[in-house]
Amino acid sequence: MSLDTAGPGAPAGGRPGPAPEPDDQVVARVEATVTAYLQRRRAEAEQVHPAFAGAADVLADFVRAGGKRLRPTFAWWGWRGAGGDPHGPDAEPALSAVSALELIQACALVHDDLIDASDTRRGRPTVHVEFTDRHRRAGLAGPSARYGDAVAILLGDLALAWADDMLAEAGLGGAAWSRARPVWSAMRTEMLGGQFLDSWCQAGAGDDPARTGGPGGAIEAALRVCRFKTAAYTVERPLHLGAALAGADPDLVAAYRRFGADIGVAFQLRDDLLGVFGDPGVTGKPAGDDLREGKRTVLVELALDAARRTGRASEHAVLTDALGDPLLDAGGVDRAREALHALGAVDEVERRIARLTESGLAALTAAQVAPPAGTRLVELAHTATRRSS
Amino acid sequence: MSLDTAGPGAPAGGRPGPAPEPDDQVVARVEATVTAYLQRRRAEAEQVHPAFAGAADVLADFVRAGGKRLRPTFAWWGWRGAGGDPHGPDAEPALSAVSALELIQACALVHDDLIDASDTRRGRPTVHVEFTDRHRRAGLAGPSARYGDAVAILLGDLALAWADDMLAEAGLGGAAWSRARPVWSAMRTEMLGGQFLDSWCQAGAGDDPARTGGPGGAIEAALRVCRFKTAAYTVERPLHLGAALAGADPDLVAAYRRFGADIGVAFQLRDDLLGVFGDPGVTGKPAGDDLREGKRTVLVELALDAARRTGRASEHAVLTDALGDPLLDAGGVDRAREALHALGAVDEVERRIARLTESGLAALTAAQVAPPAGTRLVELAHTATRRSS
Repeated sequence: MSLDTAGPGAPAGGRPGPAPEPDDQVVARVEATVTAYLQRRRAEAEQVHPAFAGAADVLADFVRAGGKRLRPTFAWWGWRGAGGDPHGPDAEPALSAVSALELIQACALVHDDLIDASDTRRGRPTVHVEFTDRHRRAGLAGPSARYGDAVAILLGDLALAWADDMLAEAGLGGAAWSRARPVWSAMRTEMLGGQFLDSWCQAGAGDDPARTGGPGGAIEAALRVCRFKTAAYTVERPLHLGAALAGADPDLVAAYRRFGADIGVAFQLRDDLLGVFGDPGVTGKPAGDDLREGKRTVLVELALDAARRTGRASEHAVLTDALGDPLLDAGGVDRAREALHALGAVDEVERRIARLTESGLAALTAAQVAPPAGTRLVELAHTATRRSS
Repeated sequence: MSLDTAGPGAPAGGRPGPAPEPDDQVVARVEATVTAYLQRRRAEAEQVHPAFAGAADVLADFVRAGGKRLRPTFAWWGWRGAGGDPHGPDAEPALSAVSALELIQACALVHDDLIDASDTRRGRPTVHVEFTDRHRRAGLAGPSARYGDAVAILLGDLALAWADDMLAEAGLGGAAWSRARPVWSAMRTEMLGGQFLDSWCQAGAGDDPARTGGPGGAIEAALRVCRFKTAAYTVERPLHLGAALAGADPDLVAAYRRFGADIGVAFQLRDDLLGVFGDPGVTGKPAGDDLREGKRTVLVELALDAARRTGRASEHAVLTDALGDPLLDAGGVDRAREALHALGAVDEVERRIARLTESGLAALTAAQVAPPAGTRLVELAHTATRRSS
């Protein structure tokens, strides 16, 4: 990997400089691309009924409001690192293809918020809550929540269908399409599999050795949630998609996938720690919220497993009492934190993050990544695994 | 249209005859194709986790258990009528492409059953009920219904994603793909728009002239539900898809679409009548169930509109009291039926069915449809609009 730091910067102040480089505005260009696409589809929704166009507007607002655009960013740099030319004729189709990932993400979030019964996302009402409120304000017939849930299911479906359309209409050449499509297909299955497995683990199904093939199965299952719900879908497959679009050789694809799987799992493990130990002023979430929601993270499963293996019944009880208790107070959060430390789970998770970050970066460093993508990917990896929010 | 009746029949008894003709086993071939596809994807789900493969098996069972395969059948005959050769090299890709419609239908039904909170479909538990039961039987953590709902959302998503994959992997040539893909895209948007509009109408949003642009807007909105949720998605777009796969000329496409839109709406209007007046011994549903569920069908909206226009307050009250009353008894069903008759809504719906069937068949008859597709499509149209179940 070339660790160059060249990456063209923004024009220096004073006179208007040359047009900014595509590489410097990946997020802005992704947002413009997906917004334009949704605007175009809105006309079609209007043909069905103005009320449906109004619902599609809520989806568009949701997409516009949100997030770090991590998936398209990883995919873009995957494409660039495999030789994609940001000034060449393939750049626009590649940008459209990677932007379509934001629509898959919209489906995942809208449906996940419904599954988790979350009321807000980034300070705004979630989609099912928005339509529940609209129903109530308009004094419509039937239960408002049922209407809100129905619309959220359908708008999530619409986002998933339109994601596929956006990829199909990206203007990829036949060869790029044939390389990219199987990656796209695998990614969606893995994402949905990861979401399924998350629900399955939250229900405690992983606790039963008969279901998981032996003790420790719950840790393994929680790791697979990280692997598929987060790593594959957020880092590994987006990079793979970018590589496939550019026609990367198998060595680079393998390096990207190793890097993506390791950094993606490390990213999720960092998230698990922040969910229990994060500073609410930085994370924007109340301290210990993951405990109240009863999240069966790798951190929690490691602790429970250690408590069982070493017969530490009181720490086991502290944790199981805290998990899923919506009224857990600050004292309860503190006691659970102490148990996680005492059982060695925090240290173990930090060790895993360090190991995964190291092995992921090693895979990338050994690969032939076209500049400046290598530098950018290393930066992204550090941001993902060291962050405090 | 050639109204020939040639269509090769099954071999006569006695010695084993020649292999049956593809045209004679469309339903069986669609079922075998989609089953094989799901079996192949199962291996991928297994890679995520055996529990996810188990969930995918429930989806496969659901697809296997179900239905008349109307959409692939219309699409197949659309393709044949546009010159598709059942013995040519394009037949297998066309069969795969039209079979993918069954996976869209699986998504629509799984999510629709959840939206409608339906417990059974064709005598079996619906998908969300199945997973609710599994959660309860296994004594897992958290509310069982929430787990069941979550898995149904995710399996519906999986069906939608796999439908797209199945079309993309059907082995269509570049030209067929380019013609078919926009039809596929429009169909999914229309289907989801129709489902959205159905929820919107059920909530009574169409009653408000301010939302619908004037009186009569509720009838218009209910008609648009028929148009998009049923007609476009069940008949018009499947025929259009088949035509596009075969490279039909614009005249045939226009005739198919007119036929499909008219017959499809007539099909739904027949369904609306059966939902209130059907013989439970034939329909398999309790008499008047559509009333108890509060369905705002065209039949119901026509009656409510007539009552309002002619100031028949008592019949209006009989209907509004019946709609959505889960405890509505046989006497209440009878009174609602009488009101629907007295307000002229039943006659009006029968008139519309007759008119739509006539205009739909006229459009088909005027077109150049390759034999034996014309005959088959006429038979399908009669079955759809005259049926008693």
